[in-house]
Amino acid sequence: MTTKTHDVIVIGAGISGLSSAKLMHEAGLEVIVLEARNRVGGRTLTKRDPSYNYVDVGGSYVGPTQDRILRLSAELGIKTYKVHTGGDYLHYSRGKITRFTGTWPKFRKPFTWLDINNAFRCMDQMIKEIPVSAPWDCPRAEEWDHVTVQQWIDDVCWMIDCKEYVRSFVVAFVAMEPEEISLLWFLWYIRSCESSRRIAQVGNGGQERKFHGGSMQICEGIHRILKDHVKLEHPVSQIKDNGQLVTVTCHDGTTFTSKLVVVAVAPSLYQKIHFEPCLPPLRSQLIQRVPMGSCIKNQVWYERAFWRQRDLNGWSSAADGMTLIGSTVDDCNPDASHPGITGFIMADRARDVCEWTPTERCKATCEYYAKLFGTDEALNPVGYEEFNWMNEEYSGGCYTSTYPPGVMTRFGKDLRKPLGRLRFAGTELATKWAGHMDGAVEAGERAAREVLSALGKIPESKIWQDESEFEGCPGFSFEISVTERAAPSIGGALKCMTFTGVLVVATIIIYKRFGLIIW
Amino acid sequence: MTTKTHDVIVIGAGISGLSSAKLMHEAGLEVIVLEARNRVGGRTLTKRDPSYNYVDVGGSYVGPTQDRILRLSAELGIKTYKVHTGGDYLHYSRGKITRFTGTWPKFRKPFTWLDINNAFRCMDQMIKEIPVSAPWDCPRAEEWDHVTVQQWIDDVCWMIDCKEYVRSFVVAFVAMEPEEISLLWFLWYIRSCESSRRIAQVGNGGQERKFHGGSMQICEGIHRILKDHVKLEHPVSQIKDNGQLVTVTCHDGTTFTSKLVVVAVAPSLYQKIHFEPCLPPLRSQLIQRVPMGSCIKNQVWYERAFWRQRDLNGWSSAADGMTLIGSTVDDCNPDASHPGITGFIMADRARDVCEWTPTERCKATCEYYAKLFGTDEALNPVGYEEFNWMNEEYSGGCYTSTYPPGVMTRFGKDLRKPLGRLRFAGTELATKWAGHMDGAVEAGERAAREVLSALGKIPESKIWQDESEFEGCPGFSFEISVTERAAPSIGGALKCMTFTGVLVVATIIIYKRFGLIIW
Repeated sequence: MTTKTHDVIVIGAGISGLSSAKLMHEAGLEVIVLEARNRVGGRTLTKRDPSYNYVDVGGSYVGPTQDRILRLSAELGIKTYKVHTGGDYLHYSRGKITRFTGTWPKFRKPFTWLDINNAFRCMDQMIKEIPVSAPWDCPRAEEWDHVTVQQWIDDVCWMIDCKEYVRSFVVAFVAMEPEEISLLWFLWYIRSCESSRRIAQVGNGGQERKFHGGSMQICEGIHRILKDHVKLEHPVSQIKDNGQLVTVTCHDGTTFTSKLVVVAVAPSLYQKIHFEPCLPPLRSQLIQRVPMGSCIKNQVWYERAFWRQRDLNGWSSAADGMTLIGSTVDDCNPDASHPGITGFIMADRARDVCEWTPTERCKATCEYYAKLFGTDEALNPVGYEEFNWMNEEYSGGCYTSTYPPGVMTRFGKDLRKPLGRLRFAGTELATKWAGHMDGAVEAGERAAREVLSALGKIPESKIWQDESEFEGCPGFSFEISVTERAAPSIGGALKCMTFTGVLVVATIIIYKRFGLIIW
Repeated sequence: MTTKTHDVIVIGAGISGLSSAKLMHEAGLEVIVLEARNRVGGRTLTKRDPSYNYVDVGGSYVGPTQDRILRLSAELGIKTYKVHTGGDYLHYSRGKITRFTGTWPKFRKPFTWLDINNAFRCMDQMIKEIPVSAPWDCPRAEEWDHVTVQQWIDDVCWMIDCKEYVRSFVVAFVAMEPEEISLLWFLWYIRSCESSRRIAQVGNGGQERKFHGGSMQICEGIHRILKDHVKLEHPVSQIKDNGQLVTVTCHDGTTFTSKLVVVAVAPSLYQKIHFEPCLPPLRSQLIQRVPMGSCIKNQVWYERAFWRQRDLNGWSSAADGMTLIGSTVDDCNPDASHPGITGFIMADRARDVCEWTPTERCKATCEYYAKLFGTDEALNPVGYEEFNWMNEEYSGGCYTSTYPPGVMTRFGKDLRKPLGRLRFAGTELATKWAGHMDGAVEAGERAAREVLSALGKIPESKIWQDESEFEGCPGFSFEISVTERAAPSIGGALKCMTFTGVLVVATIIIYKRFGLIIW
């Protein structure tokens, strides 16, 4: 049992906890980080093996406007590279494959195109109404929080192809089915990433870059700075706040004492901790209501990047809900060595195949790739790796906490509030790129400044700080074409067609009756 | 540290855990019960005070078909009495009070009556399709699980009064707002209680009786039998199952070892326990997805039961969602001493007033009672008691675990499955009167028989046992009048009226044209 009083204890050695600890350590505080697992990194995990060098099986992508994670990683000497994008994207739906370029697949049926264009235009208009740090204050907060994303899809989309495509977009970015989540929460989540294009795009979007050597190096880099202030295999079972000091007890009975505590784990994991005094009623109920998404990420390596030979960039989405892999990404190393495809098994599909063996999942993945890329070369992988985040007791799932209908307006407000001597971090509590690595840094550093403020080191007004654009990775605004801007919705098109029809009929009648006289 | 190996450790000394422990103890097993709180009873809690004798601030009511809890309590020498029902019921909505007898309020507007009759008739027809032990196998399981109860209300109800009344019914019986929960789960919950009438009614329904002396006596009675085999203030933080034996660790580091473990707490509380090996992925995700309802129960005592003088039975429901108290029950002691009214603050209203003081909640309660019962006598209470179940760390809320949309079909199947040397009890896992005290006994005794079966004491075929009707409390089938059975829905009525209208107009035209000749 340690009797020394630390300045602050951070619970969780993911990006949020460690970026928080780093900032406080640099400000001269005496910090201890307690991590349940035998590794740092949280929801980033880089596996290494001589056969494939390294692979990120957790959070991996960064892009423009994610300035905090870019600044932090650069400071640690970790470089980014642009993900391969040369060639066409693919979209798979019930056996039919659509090749396309740009953000959304271009379906041949004009009505489907109008419908998809309208759905995402609506989404991006709606998110403008949402205050990013207080979505519950949005004028239509209650209305949107009381419906599921699926209800909204059913309302706004006319064509089955469009409904399926929007569903696949939702599943791809939150790893939950649209009927499981609140429309308000989903809109807020997209809003925190700026727009549907910014979150979805590769170039100029959330998937523009990856880290040379893998994303877990960020946490490993901070671990090297903090050294043995980071205690691995220390799952916390109890936090006692007596008003003056906080005592944190781990499973093996070890206790640590500090002036303040930063809890930097996903909200639903707070339940693993017994709090004394117990959490206030709304916070206690909130953490029962924010389940983690469902995701298995896998990687298949091949002899050569056969998709590139076919002028495909390896990116794809699948929309029928029947395909094991919801989306794929080219994942050749930047020097084009170790050609590989990253696959995401998400939401229902992840739950369906939980009990399969890795071999079965690998086989099903390769069979799908053979169909998708149109070649039997896909059936002959040279390596396979996967990670089921639902199996990680101390993550509970991936990518992030999600909100079922009704939760955000009723309980969300309390998420970020300090409690006694406790402060809260974790990417879920960010206002920008929530659920992403960038959000983890925002929340971690904000919690660190809350601690510094509580200890009188900085004024309260300095807790929230803007981040300037990271130089090496500029963000550009999206060019939305006049067609995309002006194209009617299907409802609008039908009205327009009806009006035109009436006009034509009227013209014919008038012409028949009065001849050309009236012209 | 205890090194002795027990036959079985039960986690949780609520009705489910203790009824489980009792059965195993009687079968000759060496049982230890670990309880986090400093009392037995779980979600039953009887407060005692000379000024009011006793009051149940937790689970309290029993009725016909709840044969297991009736048998168990009778065996422990605890008697029931019939709750007072003489006089009219009240229904309050936006300042308007409706007096009525029977199950549902009789609104004067005939369309509202048709609408309410149709809604509950629909509900009772739908629940017949649900297999009570496997609701996910219902033919329409996915369809119903993908919508919220509110979506169903909006679909089936036409009149605002009806929508509000059905909402108030949902809130009253599950302490959640209809937009927060899955239709499939709600229908299954009602099905487990037989029907909307059985769960809602006083006489011949779930609220027919209470226990003389309070419901917590059941757990206290079993505690007296098990004596110091029940360990209070032993919150469990870890369960390690090495395949041969299970080691259970409490917060203070005390460990207990046993052949098997019965986990008898609400599913969302499993998260407080660190499992080794960790829970399988779907179970781990399930327990993040089943939040407890939101309820504060209170009790106001008066000099005299002034409502009885007005020929009111003290029962009421409120439907506008604005009233603090969603429903009231007469709670005079059986000898008519200590006249009191029990009030339920549920779902959104409970969350709204969490931060009020008890005095403020008492005042608002009495002011509402003055309006409801039409007398200023209600403003002069002689006593007040309340209990906020959201404040109980080791309950997490009340009455029961609830399912947001999409959870039951995806994760429900795993709820009851044994895991290694672990078995699972708790009222949520019952197939009859789930969420009630009766369900707690069903699940507790079933888990006990699973343990006995695993130890070779009984065959597997004896795990699930039917219960015969408890003699002292017969259940009668409900008489549904021909009017209730045959009355059309509003849609049907409108169709009927249109048809009649067309017929009348046609008759007039024919008459005008042909006179009486054709007759």
